[in-house]
Amino acid sequence: MLLGGDVDAIAGLLVLRERQPFTIFAPQSLLDLLRVNPIFGVLDPAVVRQVPIRVNEPIQCGAGLTLTLLEMPGKVPLYLETQGATVAEPGPTYAARFDANGRRIAIAPACADINQDVRRQLGDCDAVLFDGTLFRDDEMIAAGLGAKTGRRMGHVPVSGPGGTLERLGDLPVRKILLHINNSNPILLSDSPERRQVEAAGFEVGFDGMEISL
Amino acid sequence: MLLGGDVDAIAGLLVLRERQPFTIFAPQSLLDLLRVNPIFGVLDPAVVRQVPIRVNEPIQCGAGLTLTLLEMPGKVPLYLETQGATVAEPGPTYAARFDANGRRIAIAPACADINQDVRRQLGDCDAVLFDGTLFRDDEMIAAGLGAKTGRRMGHVPVSGPGGTLERLGDLPVRKILLHINNSNPILLSDSPERRQVEAAGFEVGFDGMEISL
Repeated sequence: MLLGGDVDAIAGLLVLRERQPFTIFAPQSLLDLLRVNPIFGVLDPAVVRQVPIRVNEPIQCGAGLTLTLLEMPGKVPLYLETQGATVAEPGPTYAARFDANGRRIAIAPACADINQDVRRQLGDCDAVLFDGTLFRDDEMIAAGLGAKTGRRMGHVPVSGPGGTLERLGDLPVRKILLHINNSNPILLSDSPERRQVEAAGFEVGFDGMEISL
Repeated sequence: MLLGGDVDAIAGLLVLRERQPFTIFAPQSLLDLLRVNPIFGVLDPAVVRQVPIRVNEPIQCGAGLTLTLLEMPGKVPLYLETQGATVAEPGPTYAARFDANGRRIAIAPACADINQDVRRQLGDCDAVLFDGTLFRDDEMIAAGLGAKTGRRMGHVPVSGPGGTLERLGDLPVRKILLHINNSNPILLSDSPERRQVEAAGFEVGFDGMEISL
């Protein structure tokens, strides 16, 4: 399932190239993005099925799972930005919600702003995997790693005013941060920032994590 | 430097995205291929320089190295093939030759046929890194890994009639196989096939290999 058009959301498809059968669920706009990039022609239509899905229209996606696409505040992919753009250009990004056996989990690897609509959609779940890209909005700049804030990249910061701890901390759901940039100190198990997110009721996701609901 | 248009030759550029300054040397046809795939727009022209190079026209590429692009017999990239094509469609692929301090090395990760022109170009070097994709032309089929021969994929096999051992074995240069598929038994240090290539005067390349000329 594709939730965004940025490199980290779609380039993995190139690793699955050449005769590996699977199905891509994605909004039509993202399937169109694959189509206008000839390199994704390596996904042979004889073995790779592309299924367009629409926001808020649940579909069966196999293994007893019901998938629902949710819209999140986002920005256009980096490579589709206007040359020299200095502020994030609004564009859709998505979250996925899965229902099975009366339990519900959502994954939202990119979210530019936690508004009331986001809170409502995520608060309706048993667990949420949420955008944990940066701890501080300016941490890339402060560390000399880049010139952009998190918000400029379409990611609400974990801390600070309007950040994830403040805006999602009270939701009565299991909250797990993922899509964590390597500049983010919550990756260090003994950092003050890790203690801060855990004290606020959040977990830090890791490779191989298993979640039972 | 880009030597081909297939995923394994160009997708690495996506890993270098976002503000990392470097230069891409490539024939114009490959730069055009990047241009028609909008996802490569992540390579910001403000920091990534694209330099078209022509076959057999040496250029200085930095660090005292002279780069010369060589043309090899090849096929069109998989994703540009005619749908349902059963034989390889001829298309250019390239090798790179580097000259420095009076020594010369060539890298040819894809070559569909070792003709006299290939022999002449590679025989003129001190060392050659050459396409070692498959040991036997039909090994992917025999192992149930795919329906294509090596030649169908644009790679001359290491063994057999017209193969690399037969056609390059007598060249008085250091010969190192690379671009080795995971089905190729020369990857196993104790295999009969490894002994066969070493007895024929070839080395098997490995990650981190250093070559002194």
